[in-house]
This record gives sequence, C-alpha cells and structure tokens, in this order.
Amino acid sequence: MALLVVGSVAFDSIETPYGREENILGGAATYFAVTASWFTHVRVVAVVGDDFGDEHLKVFRSRGIDTQGLDRAPGKTFRWSGEYIGDMNEARTLETQLNVFESFSPKIPPSYLDGEYVFLANIHPALQLHVREQLPRTRLVGLDTMNYWIKGTPDELRKALAAVDVLVINEGEARMLAEESNLRRAAAVVRRMGPRMLVIKRGEHGVTLFSESSIFSAPAYPLEKVSDPTGAGDTFAGGFMGHLARTRDLSEANLRRAVVYGSTMASFAVEDFGLRRLLRLTEGEIAARYREFKELTHFDA
Amino acid sequence: MALLVVGSVAFDSIETPYGREENILGGAATYFAVTASWFTHVRVVAVVGDDFGDEHLKVFRSRGIDTQGLDRAPGKTFRWSGEYIGDMNEARTLETQLNVFESFSPKIPPSYLDGEYVFLANIHPALQLHVREQLPRTRLVGLDTMNYWIKGTPDELRKALAAVDVLVINEGEARMLAEESNLRRAAAVVRRMGPRMLVIKRGEHGVTLFSESSIFSAPAYPLEKVSDPTGAGDTFAGGFMGHLARTRDLSEANLRRAVVYGSTMASFAVEDFGLRRLLRLTEGEIAARYREFKELTHFDA
Repeated sequence: MALLVVGSVAFDSIETPYGREENILGGAATYFAVTASWFTHVRVVAVVGDDFGDEHLKVFRSRGIDTQGLDRAPGKTFRWSGEYIGDMNEARTLETQLNVFESFSPKIPPSYLDGEYVFLANIHPALQLHVREQLPRTRLVGLDTMNYWIKGTPDELRKALAAVDVLVINEGEARMLAEESNLRRAAAVVRRMGPRMLVIKRGEHGVTLFSESSIFSAPAYPLEKVSDPTGAGDTFAGGFMGHLARTRDLSEANLRRAVVYGSTMASFAVEDFGLRRLLRLTEGEIAARYREFKELTHFDA
Repeated sequence: MALLVVGSVAFDSIETPYGREENILGGAATYFAVTASWFTHVRVVAVVGDDFGDEHLKVFRSRGIDTQGLDRAPGKTFRWSGEYIGDMNEARTLETQLNVFESFSPKIPPSYLDGEYVFLANIHPALQLHVREQLPRTRLVGLDTMNYWIKGTPDELRKALAAVDVLVINEGEARMLAEESNLRRAAAVVRRMGPRMLVIKRGEHGVTLFSESSIFSAPAYPLEKVSDPTGAGDTFAGGFMGHLARTRDLSEANLRRAVVYGSTMASFAVEDFGLRRLLRLTEGEIAARYREFKELTHFDA
C-alpha cells in the first residue's frame, strides 16, 4: 500500500567526532522516504531548488520512490548545518537556510489523493493540517513536530493533532507539549489532544509506544559506534509507518513490530553519514537486526 | 541460599515534589536487604550508632534478616539529607554526616563465612576487597561503586573489581570508569577490569546487562508517579542478587529474569518514601508486576 510523506528535502553539512560531510542529501522527507521504500511504495511531497540535480533525483528513483510530488522552485534547496559533540545525543545547529522551503506550500498530485497511509513530517502545523484535509481516504495519518511549533504556533498545532492518528515525537518535546514531566502522564495528556497513538523517541534510550490498550518499550540497539545521528528520528518514522503500510494491520501486536522495524532502521541510519547506510542495506540485514532486537529484549515469563 | 550484603545503614532526610521525611531508615545495605528478603535469606554487615533503636532493628527482623553482622558503635548513625527536583533523576545532596560510618571496618561473623552469594554495596573499595577476601566459598560476588571512588581511589577500586563477578553501576559512572562515552565500548572496557557481568542502571531508562554471551536491555516500569527515588539502585541490586541466590542458577536466561526482578522491585520502591512500599509488598504484587514487564516489552519475532 502506497505511503505518502510530506516534509523537507535538504542539503546537510554535518560534523561529528567521526568526520565531516558538506551538502549531502538529507531532510526529514528524504530519510523517511528512503527508509520506508524498504517496506512499501512511497510517494513524496516536498520542494527543492535549482541546485537539486539529477544525481539527487536518482537517489529517490533508485529506491522506486514516486517523485511526482517533488516541486521544483526557483532558488536554492533548504540547507542545514550542524554538529554533534560529546555523547552525540543532540545536534547543535550552526546554520539554517530555509531558501525555497520558506514558502513551501505542499501540492498533492491528483494521483496521490487516494492515499491511505500518510506521514506529515516536521513542517508548519497549518501546512500539515492543509495536507491532511485534502486526503479523505486515510487509514493512518502520522505526524511529527518540534519545540519550535509547540512554542510558536500552539493553536495551529492543536488543530493538526486533532486530525491525526499517531504522533511521533521526541521525549523532551512530548513533555513540553503536555506541560508534564512524568512521561506516562504526559502521554495521557497528548492522547487527549487527538492522536490515539503516541510514539515517543528517546534517542539512545529507545522508543516507547503509548496506544489505546497498552504501553510498549523498545530499547535502542547498542551500537559500538554512532557515526552520524542525523535523520535517525525520521528514519524511525519511515520504518514504523512503512511496516504498517506494507502489512495494512493496525493491531497492537503489529504496532509493536512496527516500532521494532523503526528502531531497526534507525540503528542502521546512524552507522554512517547521511543516507549511505540506508541506501546500501539488504533485506537480509534488516531481518537479522530485527531478530537481534528480539534477542536483546527477550526474557522468560 | 543466604545472601550477604555489606554496606551502609543510614537515617535519611528526603525532600521531593511529593513530600518530605526526616531521619527515616535508609542506606544501601538496608534497601538491598529488605528487597532481597522477598527472595531469600539475607545477612547484613553494617555499622549503626547509639541512635539506632529497637524500632529500627524490628524493620530488619520483620523481614527475617540476620542482623548478627550489625555492629553497634558509640556515636551517631550515618545521616544523609537530599532533595530531588524537576525530573527527579538525580538527588542533590544537602548534607552528609558519616558519623560511625567514617570508621566502618566490616566484621564478618563466623556464621557468615560460608556465604556463596555476596553483595558489596557502595563503600571504600579497600573495604570491599577486604570483605571479599574473607569469603572463600563464593559463587557470585556483586559490587556497586560511585564517582567518588572512581576518581578518588582508582587503584583500590581496580583491585576490588578484579575480585568480583558482577558490577552493578550507574550509566554515567560506567562511562567515567571506562573513560569511554559509548556504552557498549565502555562495557567491554569495564569487563576487562574483572567482572564478567556488568549491569548498567539507567534510571528511568531501565537497565542493560552485559554478560559473557549477550546484551539484555530492560526498560523501567513507566510509573505515573515517582514519590521518592532514594534507594532505587540498591533495591534493584537486592532484587537482582536475591533472585539469583534464591534460584542458584547463573544461566543467561536466569540472569535476565534477575534483571527484571530487580527492575520490578525498584519500580515499587520509588512509589512511596523510604522503605514503606517495600515493607508492605505482597508476593502476588511482585509476580503481577513481573508479568507487566513482560507485557511492556513483548513483541513477536
């Protein structure tokens, strides 16, 4: 089943203790789409500038991603530069150039309007709601957001949240959104805002899913080396939504599998800079690491 | 099988967002012993002062704990006061009065010398080693330590580590001890120092066990309210070691169960101030929460 993602395509300049890369293809929609392409057919709605060339388009095409919704606008593509230091748990943004992303107005191609699985990556909540309202046949709509919108556009964010099924968000942002430091209570507050499922991304501490009937905690995969954490959250979301779109099964058991597939994909993403590891994966590697997650967490009752 | 703990008995004054208690019975050996008493027969070696009365002794006795090793010295019992603010992940120490604990020299009663299961709670590493050397028949020796000894007495700590089987330590302290920020690499460094098993306590993020053959991650139980985190780490250790002493089974599968029993007990401890919740537990509650941990982490392969 096709999975639509709406979000940013960017060129990133990244420095970590393990190296430095300039102007490599990134952005939330890109990480999401490349990841989800391992699970299902992916459609993307984003805006790029004149500097987005055939070599970049080929990255999407190589993964069979539908790029009809990739809008080309005059000007430069969104650029972000940042660095990770110490425990690498948080990026320090050095520079953000919104460029064509500043006036991004998502246009849904007619062929996308039958979409049932949709992910609204981190953009202005009014745009997220606008996209969501154009898609009448959805089965599952996911949304990501960030502190900037939680603080800056709370009313628009509330409207967007009321219209989605699952919120995928960082731990600190969940606390900020709920104005509640206890995570379990924060989850209850957020779920009352609309999304019946809440997925809290906790970085190196894993992921917790709060759904209608239960709580599920998955650890992060304990990697010996994290080369570049950029895109890990969007990669998680791509694996999570990708598995759900592939299986068309929203049961509790399958939501849990989706969390582990998301964690599996994120554990690969951070092993190398940018999209590199995600582009040279194999189905066998994904299956093997999923099994490693089982081994990592299993105990007898 | 009897389980011996050597460590502190203290009177704690604690303030959290949920209340304040003055001079309540605490200390690492106390939390450990009361917890482990739910699993096996417990012996304690510690020092107390003149202010340690019958009402305090009764707490140990009520749990069937052998207090032959409880040394009474002239002076006052160790006192600690601290507060927890914000996310309550770390205590801020307001005052420490070592009192009789300052010259603590652990004396092992002859009847304890056959001990096979031993936990050396957080005291001077030279004392930990001294105790360990008096016990020739051990099957499993656990040790806890802290930043104070890692920085202050590294040589003594190295000797103690070389003589134990399992180190139970906080995440930040594991990184400090190994001088390595990546947790998986830090674990490898620490295991080369002696302990063949390493249990890393991650507070609200759970526990990770690094053993000879594998890594096991367990989440913390997502509580709606944490009243008082004091003693959570020692409670974890009491459940972990208690289960192992009860079952006399050091297989990988049973080590994992022990981690979950430790996490189960810690999740109870923090629900109320001091030892209160640990003293009014039932076997049924322990079994039910263990099952909840299974439900919290289970997914299909």
